[in-house]
Amino acid sequence: MNGAEALIRTATAAGVDVCFANPGTTEMHVVAALDAAPGMRAVLALFEGVVTGAADGYARLSGKPALTLLHLGPGFANGIANLHNARRAHSPIVNVIGDQATWHLAADAPLTSDIESLARPVSRWLRKSATAAALAGDTADAIAAARVGGGGAATLIVPADCAWGDSPGPAKARPFDPRKPVTSGAIDAVAKRLRGSDSAVLLLGADALGRRGQLAAARIAATTRARVLLGTFPHCVERGAGLPPFPKFPYFPEQGVELLSKVTELVLAGITEPVAFFGYPKLPSKLAPESCHVSTLASPEEDSAGALEALAEALGAKPDAGIRATREDFPEATGKLSSETLGRTLARLQPEGAIVVDEAATSGAQWFSLAAGAPPHTVLSLTGGAIGQGLPNAVGAAIACPGRRVIAFQADGSGMYTVQSLWTMAREQLDVTVVVCANRAYRILKVELARADISQPGPAARALTDLEPPTLDFVSLAKGLGVPAERAESAEQLSAALSRALSERGPRLVEAVI
Amino acid sequence: MNGAEALIRTATAAGVDVCFANPGTTEMHVVAALDAAPGMRAVLALFEGVVTGAADGYARLSGKPALTLLHLGPGFANGIANLHNARRAHSPIVNVIGDQATWHLAADAPLTSDIESLARPVSRWLRKSATAAALAGDTADAIAAARVGGGGAATLIVPADCAWGDSPGPAKARPFDPRKPVTSGAIDAVAKRLRGSDSAVLLLGADALGRRGQLAAARIAATTRARVLLGTFPHCVERGAGLPPFPKFPYFPEQGVELLSKVTELVLAGITEPVAFFGYPKLPSKLAPESCHVSTLASPEEDSAGALEALAEALGAKPDAGIRATREDFPEATGKLSSETLGRTLARLQPEGAIVVDEAATSGAQWFSLAAGAPPHTVLSLTGGAIGQGLPNAVGAAIACPGRRVIAFQADGSGMYTVQSLWTMAREQLDVTVVVCANRAYRILKVELARADISQPGPAARALTDLEPPTLDFVSLAKGLGVPAERAESAEQLSAALSRALSERGPRLVEAVI
Repeated sequence: MNGAEALIRTATAAGVDVCFANPGTTEMHVVAALDAAPGMRAVLALFEGVVTGAADGYARLSGKPALTLLHLGPGFANGIANLHNARRAHSPIVNVIGDQATWHLAADAPLTSDIESLARPVSRWLRKSATAAALAGDTADAIAAARVGGGGAATLIVPADCAWGDSPGPAKARPFDPRKPVTSGAIDAVAKRLRGSDSAVLLLGADALGRRGQLAAARIAATTRARVLLGTFPHCVERGAGLPPFPKFPYFPEQGVELLSKVTELVLAGITEPVAFFGYPKLPSKLAPESCHVSTLASPEEDSAGALEALAEALGAKPDAGIRATREDFPEATGKLSSETLGRTLARLQPEGAIVVDEAATSGAQWFSLAAGAPPHTVLSLTGGAIGQGLPNAVGAAIACPGRRVIAFQADGSGMYTVQSLWTMAREQLDVTVVVCANRAYRILKVELARADISQPGPAARALTDLEPPTLDFVSLAKGLGVPAERAESAEQLSAALSRALSERGPRLVEAVI
Repeated sequence: MNGAEALIRTATAAGVDVCFANPGTTEMHVVAALDAAPGMRAVLALFEGVVTGAADGYARLSGKPALTLLHLGPGFANGIANLHNARRAHSPIVNVIGDQATWHLAADAPLTSDIESLARPVSRWLRKSATAAALAGDTADAIAAARVGGGGAATLIVPADCAWGDSPGPAKARPFDPRKPVTSGAIDAVAKRLRGSDSAVLLLGADALGRRGQLAAARIAATTRARVLLGTFPHCVERGAGLPPFPKFPYFPEQGVELLSKVTELVLAGITEPVAFFGYPKLPSKLAPESCHVSTLASPEEDSAGALEALAEALGAKPDAGIRATREDFPEATGKLSSETLGRTLARLQPEGAIVVDEAATSGAQWFSLAAGAPPHTVLSLTGGAIGQGLPNAVGAAIACPGRRVIAFQADGSGMYTVQSLWTMAREQLDVTVVVCANRAYRILKVELARADISQPGPAARALTDLEPPTLDFVSLAKGLGVPAERAESAEQLSAALSRALSERGPRLVEAVI
């Protein structure tokens, strides 16, 4: 067999069985190997940002890597923004990038570029295969590297001659260290600090956002009166009735500073210390005051859920202690669409077990807290700030979790970066309901202009933050990409349209004009 | 004034007066400066690949840089593919990338990444501003660096505090070396070799592709019987009646090897030695045989047009010698749409002075040679192989050349990478006629599968090279993005639709189903 077939067989043997792809000439032998070596599901996207964002969404829900198959430096570059988000989400991903044949690199053919330099900032592990014989082993190493400590992106550059050359066969899966347990000493130290504090905050990220981690955190809160918050952009959080209604740490730094101003103990579980998303004049980078003691219970690569459970035990918390949200009976929202009526409508209609991919930006402000009273669901959010994550994440989530309803709660401006995702939803007939919040502006940038003391933006500033004219028509866009769609201009219309969309198999889009 | 305003004033003073932009929070002061400092046209795109591809198209026609305004590492990354193409086109571009405030970098906020590592592969010049006071000087340096020797991309990273901090004011434009003239010694050496050869090939790139360079090359050919060819992917070539009907060097390496097999003298003007686009087993990287002597008359950064004129003189060529194409009266094509009927229809209808951005891939195979008999026009092609260049290039070309008709001759698969371009065409009401060649496949990849001896692709290989189901509906896509559109399914329908589109101001799209 050739190197490409050994690569695919190595991956499937290690349990990696989905490949999101936008291949080109240098990847044709890997493409052919997908037929020669069965067991790998290949999913085509029309743009590489969809490929990498789908792999991220898949990883967040399945906990394991998919392959991405990308074409040289420029093809990979198109996927970097969503790999940046994936890096912040600690998602396991194995990028396979085809490159020029080893002997052809020196010719500096038109598509040749420095792939390593492009890949390094978004790859925790990076290697270029040297020979066809080495490719299977490199693949096994990449998969293990992607899975260590929860996850990250491993990038394997595959020169074309390594794919078409002879291989001795697939390599065995390598052992890898999953999340490391936290020592009892570290847990006892945090327990001691929490016992002595009456104004502690416990901040959750990584695997602390799962059911186990949150229930343990609720027990800790009940025992110590610590406040529990989720990180501002949880990569994958379990929410809804039966789970604690923890709020998110606020986005704007003033609010973060205010929240922490009287806090003397900050405990981090699966997350790093809160910092401002952007620097602003006269605001600090770190949001906790000097007077606040910061402890790391568990880093994002450690076993936060286990550490929280051990901490709850160490504190003597009762097994079922802590507040849980109860199912709320939302009345139907009426009238004009707004962040609030949109949020109420979605919270009312989202089915049990839904996966909500939240890239609704300013339009989504109200939904998250309301949805604490919705049926149990999972929320994915924009971890790295590189907009255009939502629709691709929804593709990957739907492929990871067939049978669950995926709802892409999507801002219009952000949605346009990777709108090609809709086509893959249609091709794969994924059960994704897309709700586009059409405020027809980069609203957050208008807020940021005001924050920069530009309260009266001139024509250039308005032109660079307004999304019309012309008005984006998402119903036509969806139709063009094979997804049935309709438009809603009131809460009542949204309610009806969303109910219809949620009752259908396959993708549907609702453009909510707010 | 602040650093951002000094940046904009420095640019406009240096004659840089167009800014293609997709800004975010870290660029808000630069955005505001566009209002404070008049004279810069700001053009919004909904995706960064449109921004950089537009700057490339603008540079190819205007010969001078535009600014791009991009948001941190991920925003820049979305623009890399078209900067890769721009690099191969030697296009002057000044990238302005907003970054975290200098003092906020260490906080590793979610959007922070290693921008330098991402930018280096596509930047001939790269600097991060250290202070607000230095920003204007950095801008002047960047503009000069972008313009040296024909052009390249200069990338300036602007931390937010350098934009909002105090500046002493704008900097003066720096002197820069344009294309260096070729020495008479080098010209005489080539003249001597051409005189002694009866099987020479003269290959043209860079500024040799302009009217002056080509007319000189035609004189040289008439005197020496050298064959003249254009590089395979000319960045910007003058063509049509009155100009020499030089063909392009072929794409597939077998054809290149065959063409050069008996050639003993290869002369390069504004281009490097021909190499295979991709490496294939049993085919060489370099296409010229060992027995062929290769001379560089002028590098891509030197004055090729001047060198060709001097060479023609040195060879004693008559002033008006050489073949010129005459205007051809194309009969209307009828029947099924194919590369040939498509090519004939476009060659027949394209108006004088048209700028044709050719990313039609396999569907466009026939048009280029036919169009030698069309009215004078300019052709831009895909220089770096990173597909998704065509529509953004058309945006930039239209902004560089108001009053000229731009025709985006576009493959469907490639068009989907940067389809957001249509919205900017509509917003700016650009006179762009888009002809989408809808063969509903990555046809070139099917050819490449066959070349890789995969003559019977399995279901996975077919799925990764077919663009349906679902069928992309470009008429709806265009409508969604604000561009009126219609579909043509025969040569007669295309002829009628294209005539209508070309007679209208503003953008129109015709989907040609082939």
